[in-house]
Amino acid sequence: MTREPFAYSNENCSIARTLDIVGEKWSLLVLREAFYGRRRFDEFARALGCGRAILTARLNRLVEEGLMARRPYQEPGERTRHEYRLTGKGVELFPVLLALLRWGDRWMADDDGPPVELLHHGCGEAVSVTMSCAGGHTPLTVFDLDPRPGPGARLADRHDH
Amino acid sequence: MTREPFAYSNENCSIARTLDIVGEKWSLLVLREAFYGRRRFDEFARALGCGRAILTARLNRLVEEGLMARRPYQEPGERTRHEYRLTGKGVELFPVLLALLRWGDRWMADDDGPPVELLHHGCGEAVSVTMSCAGGHTPLTVFDLDPRPGPGARLADRHDH
Repeated sequence: MTREPFAYSNENCSIARTLDIVGEKWSLLVLREAFYGRRRFDEFARALGCGRAILTARLNRLVEEGLMARRPYQEPGERTRHEYRLTGKGVELFPVLLALLRWGDRWMADDDGPPVELLHHGCGEAVSVTMSCAGGHTPLTVFDLDPRPGPGARLADRHDH
Repeated sequence: MTREPFAYSNENCSIARTLDIVGEKWSLLVLREAFYGRRRFDEFARALGCGRAILTARLNRLVEEGLMARRPYQEPGERTRHEYRLTGKGVELFPVLLALLRWGDRWMADDDGPPVELLHHGCGEAVSVTMSCAGGHTPLTVFDLDPRPGPGARLADRHDH
């Protein structure tokens, strides 16, 4: 990674835009529970232990942004309720959660070890995130990376320098 | 990924513990700027455009948690100031930022494209995160993963079911 500060505008940064949607702890934990198989409001509420107003707000935002889809269901004799399923856009966010999980496993776990293991269904081995390039070089570390202005780069204004 | 809800306690979840440290937009953006080469308080403040009180709080937390180290420096004729450098613990969080960036590039970029490209220093190809297993199978998707209780798993209490 370069040591010269990268001087382009952050104003359209892809990291910041993603965090504008999911950069709040409960949003990512709702997604975690969706990945773990929860679909119904009460399932999320029980698993997360957060307030129902917060959960409603986070689910609504994830639906608005297209990461989850709300679908009606009805149990016999009960009113129509809604369940929440990950969309393709939501599913693609999983590497973020896996990267958070693996860092937490390494730096934050109790002495008895991580509470959850994510295993490859095919072979049972532990799954992790790896940084690699389109040229097939892997694994890379942050020291192998050069940030460069992309096609949407904007020069930082004076305030940014 | 299993469709049966995963019924172990979230109370020691590695994702939640990581988010307790960096699960706030400004913390991750401070780390982004550190990866882009910023070191000094004023550099972070100008690049981020956030309030100085927020920046101070976020930097202090990242130092307390060992993701950044504070080191004194002194320009001729000025008082001693501090700069902030990523530690190994902080560097290892980079896959989280790369995963956020790549998702944002795909789903949130303007029509002219992503503002930043991260290229492999060795060959110039674009860098991304990939999910792979210790058995060498790659790339995996979330549908290839099974969550299993790990050595630190705790049974969910009644409230959790």
